[in-house]
Order: sequence, then C-alpha cells, then structure tokens
Amino acid sequence: MADNQLDHRAPAKPADGEEIERPEIYDEEGELDSDFLDHVRGAIRASDAETLRSDVAPLHDSELGDILQHLDFDERQGLVRLLGDDFDYTALTQVDEAVRLEIVEAMPNEQIAAAVRELDSDDAVYILEDLDENDRKDILEQLPFRERIRLRRALEYPDESAGRRMQTEFVAVPPFWTVGQTIDYLRDEEGLPDNFSQIFVIDPSFKLVGAVDLDRILRTRRPEKVEEIMRETRHAIPVDMDQEEAAQIFEQYDLLSAAVVDENERLVGVLTIDDVVDVIQQEAEEDIRRLGGVGDEELSDSVLATSRSRVPWLLVNLVTAILAASVIGLFDATIEKVVALAVLMPIVAGMGGNAASQTMTVTVRALATRDLDLYNSARIIRREVGVGFINGIVFAVLIGVVAALWFREADLGGIIAAAMIINMFAAALGGILIPLTLDRFGVDPAIASAVFVTTVTDVVGFFAFLGLATWWFGG
Amino acid sequence: MADNQLDHRAPAKPADGEEIERPEIYDEEGELDSDFLDHVRGAIRASDAETLRSDVAPLHDSELGDILQHLDFDERQGLVRLLGDDFDYTALTQVDEAVRLEIVEAMPNEQIAAAVRELDSDDAVYILEDLDENDRKDILEQLPFRERIRLRRALEYPDESAGRRMQTEFVAVPPFWTVGQTIDYLRDEEGLPDNFSQIFVIDPSFKLVGAVDLDRILRTRRPEKVEEIMRETRHAIPVDMDQEEAAQIFEQYDLLSAAVVDENERLVGVLTIDDVVDVIQQEAEEDIRRLGGVGDEELSDSVLATSRSRVPWLLVNLVTAILAASVIGLFDATIEKVVALAVLMPIVAGMGGNAASQTMTVTVRALATRDLDLYNSARIIRREVGVGFINGIVFAVLIGVVAALWFREADLGGIIAAAMIINMFAAALGGILIPLTLDRFGVDPAIASAVFVTTVTDVVGFFAFLGLATWWFGG
Repeated sequence: MADNQLDHRAPAKPADGEEIERPEIYDEEGELDSDFLDHVRGAIRASDAETLRSDVAPLHDSELGDILQHLDFDERQGLVRLLGDDFDYTALTQVDEAVRLEIVEAMPNEQIAAAVRELDSDDAVYILEDLDENDRKDILEQLPFRERIRLRRALEYPDESAGRRMQTEFVAVPPFWTVGQTIDYLRDEEGLPDNFSQIFVIDPSFKLVGAVDLDRILRTRRPEKVEEIMRETRHAIPVDMDQEEAAQIFEQYDLLSAAVVDENERLVGVLTIDDVVDVIQQEAEEDIRRLGGVGDEELSDSVLATSRSRVPWLLVNLVTAILAASVIGLFDATIEKVVALAVLMPIVAGMGGNAASQTMTVTVRALATRDLDLYNSARIIRREVGVGFINGIVFAVLIGVVAALWFREADLGGIIAAAMIINMFAAALGGILIPLTLDRFGVDPAIASAVFVTTVTDVVGFFAFLGLATWWFGG
Repeated sequence: MADNQLDHRAPAKPADGEEIERPEIYDEEGELDSDFLDHVRGAIRASDAETLRSDVAPLHDSELGDILQHLDFDERQGLVRLLGDDFDYTALTQVDEAVRLEIVEAMPNEQIAAAVRELDSDDAVYILEDLDENDRKDILEQLPFRERIRLRRALEYPDESAGRRMQTEFVAVPPFWTVGQTIDYLRDEEGLPDNFSQIFVIDPSFKLVGAVDLDRILRTRRPEKVEEIMRETRHAIPVDMDQEEAAQIFEQYDLLSAAVVDENERLVGVLTIDDVVDVIQQEAEEDIRRLGGVGDEELSDSVLATSRSRVPWLLVNLVTAILAASVIGLFDATIEKVVALAVLMPIVAGMGGNAASQTMTVTVRALATRDLDLYNSARIIRREVGVGFINGIVFAVLIGVVAALWFREADLGGIIAAAMIINMFAAALGGILIPLTLDRFGVDPAIASAVFVTTVTDVVGFFAFLGLATWWFGG
C-alpha cells in the first residue's frame, strides 16, 4: 500500500502556468467539501458516468474511500457500477468493514476476482478475509495459479498476524551479485513491485541473509559486491507474530520496512510502515474504545447492531450499580434520620470515581506502551498513593467546609471529609492495582478496569460515608 | 531519525555459525530483562566503564532510552558520565521530558553543544526546545555557523509545527540532470544525509519542483533526465503546518516522507514517517488522557507535580457533583418518606453516565479521525437516539423488575423504569450533542465532554427519578 509519492495525478499546475480546473475535494477544516459531494451525488443520480470518470476516478484511493463513506447505500452501488473498470478497488481498504462488505457482497464473484487481481497482495487479503468461506473459495479459484497459492497461504496465517498484513511482492538478490548487476537487474526486470525501499539478500534456499537500503546501493560503486554493503537482519518479523508486536518493533527501531520470514527463516514477504501506522492507530483506538465501554462498532453500523454491542457493558455496570446500591440499603435507617446523607453521598462516590479514572487511564496507557513494568511498578504505586493522599486531603477540606455550611452542621462536614480521604485513597490503590493485576493475569486492562474500579470507589465511598455517619449519629 | 535498518550492530551470528555472547536485553514479554538491568546497575555502581562500553554503548538509541527510563537519578547520571563520548545522545529523544531535562541540566553547556553537533537536526531541536532561553543561546553560539543558523531557524517555527519536526538534511538535484549524473553525484558526494528515501528536484532559487523515489532512479537508464521521471509535488507540507495536520496527510496518502516548504515554496526540509508515527501516537495518547481527565503528566513526574496537575479536573467535577447533589436536595422530603429512593437513585444516574460515555467515546473519536462531520452528523444523531431508546427500554425492564422485587413495591419498579428510559435518552443526546457542540466552537471535545455529559446524566437521572416519585407518592 505504500506509495511514497507526492502526486498520483496530473499536475495541478502545468509548466506553462495555466491552471487546470480541478474540483476542490476537502474544505479548510480537512472535511469533505459539501459542494464536491453534492456534485458527485448529482452525477450518480444522473447516471453521468463521464463526469464521475473525470472527477472521481483519478482521486487517491483514500479520497475515494472518504467519498464512499459519505454516500448512502444506493449512491455507493451506483458509483461503483458507473465507474466500472475505472473504480479503484484499493479504496475498499479505506472504508469501514460494514461499507466494504456491503459493496463487495453486491458484486458477482467474477468481478471481485478481477478486482483482486489488480491489487497488491496485502490489499487483496484485506478484502478477502472478511468474505465467507464459499465466496472466498470461489474467487480464489478464478485467480491465476501463482496468485491463488500466495493469497491462500496468506489467508492461512492467523488473524491480525504479520503474515496477513505483509506484502508478498519484494525484490531479493543473491549476496555475490555486484551493485552493477543489481542495478542492471532493476532496470531490465519487468515484474518488480510498484514501490520498494530496500533490497533483500537471500541464499539459494530463499533464506534471508541481509538487506540493503536503496540509498546505500546508489552511493556504492558498481564493482562492489552486495554482501559487502548489506546489513545483517536483526529485526526480521516471524510470519505468525501478532501485528501489534510487529508494530512495536517498527516503532522502537524506527523501521520503514522489515522482512517477514517463515519458521525456516525463509523470506516470505515484507511488512511496510504504512500498514504498521494503521495498526498503531487501531490499537490506540481499541484502548480508547475499551476504556469507554464500546466494542468494535463502526459509525456505519445499524441502530440494532450498535445497541446490541453496547448492552453487555451496560449489563455489567447494572450489576455493579445494584451492588453499590445494596451497600446504601444497609444504612437506610440512618438515611431516614439524616436525609442530608442521601444528598451528599453521590459526591463522595463520584469524586472517588473520577480520581480513580485518572490513575487508571495513566496506568492502562503505561502498560500498553510498556512504560510500566515489574521494575518500576513499586515506584508508580507509591506515587499514586501519595497523589491520592494529597488530593484526598485537598478535597476533604473543600467538601467538608461546603457540607458544613450547606447543612449548618459541623459534624456532617467532618464525616464527609473523612470519607473523602478514605475514598480517594481507595481510588488511587484501585486505579493502579486493578489494571496491574488484570495485566498480570493476561486480561487486557483497558477492557475490564473501569468496571472494577468504579465498583471499588462506589462501594468504598458509600460504605465509608454512611458507615461513619451511622457510627457517629447512631444507627 | 529514520534508519530503515535491520541491524545497527555487529551480527549476532557471524558467518562461521559461532554464536557471539550478547546479553539478552528484553524478556519474552517485551519488557526490559531484569538480569540485564541488574548487570547494568552493577556496572554503574562499580564504575566499570569498560563493561558499559561493551554492553550498553552498542545498543540502539531506543534501547538505551528504555534503560535510562528504568534507572534512578544517580544511576542515570553515572551511566552518562561513565559512557562519556560513547553515550548516544539520540537516546535522549526516546525518554520522558522529565528524564531528558534531568540529564541535560546536569551537563555543562559545552558538552551539550558537542552532543548536538553529532545529532540529526530534528533530534537536536527536540533536545534544545526544552532548554531555557539562556542555555539555548549559549549552546547555539558554540556551534559552527551553518548548523547554528539552521537550528535557530528551526527553533523559530511554532511549537508542534512541521518546521520543528523536520530534518534539514536532504538530497536535492536540478531537473535537467540525468539519472547517470545523479547516481555519480550520490557516489562521490561526502556530505549526504545518513538515510534518505527520495531525491527532491529544485530550481536554481531552491523552489521545489518535484521528487523522485530511489527505486525509480534505480530502474531508469543513465541518459534519462530527472525531470522525465520526477513526480510533481502535491503533498508538500508548509513549514508552519501543525504536526497533527501533517500526520493526517501522511496517513491519508500513505507517505513515507514529504518535502517541507517555506512561504515562497522553497524546499527547507523533509518530514519522515518515523517522526509522524510518534505524532500519531502522541495525538491518540492525548485523547485517551483527556477523556480520562489527566493532562500532560508523565510517569516520571513527582508526586506533587502529578497531584497538582490532576486537581483542576477534580475541582470541576466537585462543582458538578455538588450541582447534582443540590438536585437531590430538592426532594429531601420525598426521600425521608421513601428511603428506598436513596438506595436506587445512584443506579439511574450511573447507568445514564455509562451509556453517555459510550456514545461520547464514539463521537469524540469519530471527530478526531474526521469520520464525523456536518454531512453525516444527522444520521449519527438519529442512530444514537435510536440506540438510547432501545437500550433505555431494555434496562428499564430489567431494573424495574429488580426494584419491584427488592422493595416489594410495584410502583417503585414503574417509577425507576420510566426514569431509566428518560435518562438513557438524555444520555444519548448529551453523549453526541455535547462533543459536537464543543467541536463546533473550537474546543477539543476530548478535554471537556466528560464533565458536561456526566452533569447532564446525573442531573436528569436524579431529577427524573425523584421528581416522578414525588409526583406519584406526593411531596
């Protein structure tokens, strides 16, 4: 998918300085321009294939993807049909899964097969992996032998593995070739990938022995041998490595591309930074969504699908809310006597919840980026407890004064202040220990921490405040 | 910072198959190996410069950064001192700001100047931008003229702009050169950047006219002219563009590097994907932190600094919690009569808060990735309202039954069910309209949405539930 290009289209300004009329597709905010979108919609309604071919077909695949994302079902199908062979199927890798499936499922398998043949192997896998078993088989059978074998093998690698994301097109030469031979080969060979940034060095059994960056080739004189200038491969990615782990290696070592090798250390593909950027984006996205209690939903999902996907999280929260409520139920006699307690108790619980979510956010992210581990966790726990203690005192004083003035009762101020310190302390401990513990047991802390943490701060908050009040005012 | 290298060190396995003893620095989890860390600590304590030079100096800058991050203050200073000239200052770009400042501030300015001279311009800027005015001036004055001018100019660009992140080292040739001339130039010229993936084409006034990828050069015969194979530059980045916007262009067009140009369209630098990956990571990180109510704190911050940075958010939440509590206060007479209301009311408010935070998370992210805009917001609002309505009914039935059985009072079940539907509906509306409105007014929705949204669900939740109960049971 990498193209490293500054332009894919005709130049906006030809050499003679005359401006070519070219519709502006993004506005100043970086959003799709409404006039352009209306123009496209109008052309689809009018079945004006010519306008679409001149104004939409030359766009970058991501721009076409953006447009597809903004059209409704009928418009999308119309656009694909009207563009025909000029539709750039790479755009399908740039849209939500729901939109992609919608478009692909409306196409006959022969058309998908024809499209797949035009795509880079990583993009083809991206589209094929979502299809059902039978369609996939049918499409693969319509492909030429070599491509079929390649794609079938890629699809056999586990979901979200390096093997699924890699490109199987690459340039490889033997170590005994000279720089001159390599350059001549690149100039004469027809079947090279569209873009590449390094040349791999392999032995006769396809085993990876090294790599050379293109700038190194260009800076070296022709008689020199490739093995003299190559680097040993230290960050080769095993084909079954999880894509997230591969992304971390790219990030740590600032790689632009890396060789992917099978269990026999044979070169089978190349993973490029642009695919990895998508993975990094996805993983951060996943953490945000999990912390917010939403799953893999997409903006294009239907009401029912969205509703269903959000119910489980709400259900878990209902159970913990009932648990917290039952703690309140233990003290109903006290509340009946001092109704101000009912007014103030959500403040104690809520502040604890907010403080805990601060600690939890920091902890979950530090775990995700591996900044937090066994060796510094003791220090971070100490820090969080210290912060909880200090902020507990700060807010205890504040709320104590407010409560005492509000209800003109100094005792109430003292009780809520004490409860606040206890709950902020519990919040700090819960906010760091719960994600750490979940992580230790192999559970993603982003997905489950929030429930446990708010349960702790609700239960402790209500129990401390109402318990202290019961003890003070009598049950 | 890009190196696109598979290895920077001596090969782990030399050609004759004999393994070189090389300490393992990461364990299976991808965390720093404790034995290795102890080994480094021991060597620092023993002032064993030789061991450090052989085991730590050859590491990749990011690995050295990881180690620095895990050492305490004294150990860090010891390591830098013992490694002396073998310390790779690039590692300073890989650590938290607090750690970086700590190390740099302990160094005399002459030493910093010497370090800066060794670094790529983007890394040098990274270190210099955190220093105070006077130190920076002093250090710049100790640099050779050309470097001083370059760095001073880079530091004049706004914070977080493309100009700050770009590298000022690049390769540029005139359009009338042939491929052969270009290759000869690359072979003979000494002062080229360490790594590059494209060659820029400029006119005599340094105006950017195009670019050629290295693979294109390698595939083209010597007599052909560069202008025949170059691409026009469409995605040139203005030097004062915000780094986040630049990152979005990289992502959308799958760029590996892009030219940075000044207001006269003259080429002044190159922005590379590895710096952009850091930006993408940072921006996602920022959203997560803002949603969690934490600012720019880092793991290495002190207790007091952390505590202080978290107080403002908690203070805002205290005010909204008091507001919600005052709503409860309106109904104290009813609560005194039916104390079960006090037990159940946090459930209504809490479920609304959770449902709203689901909607809000999706909305905030969709705004950040520009998937949500004017043209589809109507559809998304309809969807969220639909989801809120359906889930409202689902949880109304559940909690209604639970409440009726728990307190053996059917009326109470009906009241809480009605309140739940109202609050889930308010949650859906608040969860989407609040971030959209903040965004329209130019406020980052990630930073402020949560407060407003929970205020809405708390106030509506308490008001609906207690209000309905007062109307039903009498005030």
